[in-house]
Amino acid sequence: MINELIKKIKKTGAPIVVGLDPTLKLIPKHLLEKAYKEYGENPEGVAQAIVEYNRGIVDAVADLVPAVKPQIAMYEQFGIPGLIAYQKTIQYCKEKGLVVIGDIKRGDIGSTSEAYAVGHLGKVTIGGADYRGFEEDFATVNPYLGSDGVKPFMEVCRQEKRGIFVLVKTSNPSSGEFQDQKIDGRPLYELVGEKVAAWGEDLMGDGYSYVGAVVGATYPEEGRILRKLMPRTYILVPGYGAQGGKGADLVHFFNEDGLGAIINSSRGIIAAYQQEKYAAYGEENYADAARQAVLDMKTDIKDALDAAGK
Amino acid sequence: MINELIKKIKKTGAPIVVGLDPTLKLIPKHLLEKAYKEYGENPEGVAQAIVEYNRGIVDAVADLVPAVKPQIAMYEQFGIPGLIAYQKTIQYCKEKGLVVIGDIKRGDIGSTSEAYAVGHLGKVTIGGADYRGFEEDFATVNPYLGSDGVKPFMEVCRQEKRGIFVLVKTSNPSSGEFQDQKIDGRPLYELVGEKVAAWGEDLMGDGYSYVGAVVGATYPEEGRILRKLMPRTYILVPGYGAQGGKGADLVHFFNEDGLGAIINSSRGIIAAYQQEKYAAYGEENYADAARQAVLDMKTDIKDALDAAGK
Repeated sequence: MINELIKKIKKTGAPIVVGLDPTLKLIPKHLLEKAYKEYGENPEGVAQAIVEYNRGIVDAVADLVPAVKPQIAMYEQFGIPGLIAYQKTIQYCKEKGLVVIGDIKRGDIGSTSEAYAVGHLGKVTIGGADYRGFEEDFATVNPYLGSDGVKPFMEVCRQEKRGIFVLVKTSNPSSGEFQDQKIDGRPLYELVGEKVAAWGEDLMGDGYSYVGAVVGATYPEEGRILRKLMPRTYILVPGYGAQGGKGADLVHFFNEDGLGAIINSSRGIIAAYQQEKYAAYGEENYADAARQAVLDMKTDIKDALDAAGK
Repeated sequence: MINELIKKIKKTGAPIVVGLDPTLKLIPKHLLEKAYKEYGENPEGVAQAIVEYNRGIVDAVADLVPAVKPQIAMYEQFGIPGLIAYQKTIQYCKEKGLVVIGDIKRGDIGSTSEAYAVGHLGKVTIGGADYRGFEEDFATVNPYLGSDGVKPFMEVCRQEKRGIFVLVKTSNPSSGEFQDQKIDGRPLYELVGEKVAAWGEDLMGDGYSYVGAVVGATYPEEGRILRKLMPRTYILVPGYGAQGGKGADLVHFFNEDGLGAIINSSRGIIAAYQQEKYAAYGEENYADAARQAVLDMKTDIKDALDAAGK
């Protein structure tokens, strides 16, 4: 799947993931009203509006980007109907040929991580037949529990040719509280990064590993260090746009081959219509606004990479 | 809810949580066969069998213990039907007066943690009405992202009088890989423990905080240190039984008042019928075996606390 992701990145020329992170405030009113009429003003109605909202975005950007990243928390907050919307969103994205990164940040002791891995990237076998739960292509994984908590995901990835992105240095303001703590003079995130690189050696695709890393766009200097520390690790970079990361900050996350990083933007794309810059599209044309925001993001990244000679 | 939990611990005299972690191999055959006949040999059938299995256990132990801890991964592996079984299990446990600790180990950047907190411990408001997703009383939280990732859970806990247990030192063999790394001579888990204690000061119940910690029974020495470092923090202790923790190891997790810790056992109770010791009950009487395993665990802990004068 890492080979497939890279093929799609090369084909689209856009190392971009669209974060499908719906919240009530982002969903255009006409979609909510339509869904409420049919399903009621309740979680079922919201879930239906989310699916429609996502479909609109996906239809508008599927030819421009290689991948999407639904954040499961935004669906989980609406309980079971929300999780059904998560599942439907994934199915629709895969029908449209997109790689799906499930931003689930799971991680537990071995037997429990195995259950998460099976549910999201693999299958359960019941009476000789296989069943798949959520069917993401990649999942994000939290490393706090160590190798035990990560290896069951890797085992399922090996069987299924799917992948993971392990949290190394997250994009949020307080990520340094534990991740920057110095161990023999070096921050914890470097240790985690080295582990990710080592885990990845056991699960290589053609040029990059099935074991990727998450490093926030908001920490470009850390990105530069981690890029060198994990040369064959694909880096999923959140924090562009709404969280403050800029195109010029991103160049450090890429290798000299122009590959090695894929940049996520969520609100900046899916709610572009709420920004002054794209306000002329109007709320009903939120999908066209999203498409333009992707095109602008692509230019921003391309210009930055060109300027850096990457 | 921490006051309620402590009240129930005192009333039952059992600082015990029953881990409701069903897997296909643990569910008694007669329950699977019955559910398969009605719902098919598929995830829906398994989900129904899980609910029945859990109901049997809960009926058998509800008067003996204060709390249960369903591990959501074991349900999530069966996709949407599994998560419906998770929800039904929680509802049933609450009807029976048990405190429910959702072992979800979530944690993300602020806005995302807020969505998890709302979905599991709080409510979403749609058109003026409130809806609750999963309705646990407590949830486990991963601290890797720092304060940002934990405080949205605390905010919801404050509104809802619910609580969290933050991972500090986990029970698995490789937990030391990052958690034991020395920072200025002290392991990371101590730093996390100090943070948990500090967060907890802002959200106190009568004697203990709404912000608890997870420390594995498999690390009794670390438990002793953390107990002193976080005097008003309730410690959820996994790893007893199947993972190797013993009664004598547990005394370090308790304060002198005999409170401050609650010990989880999952397979050791719910699949007691599979152990030689309880084999005489037979698979059909798995619930009676579970009840006896709880009584034995209660004695094991009580003897250890008595011997330690706690």
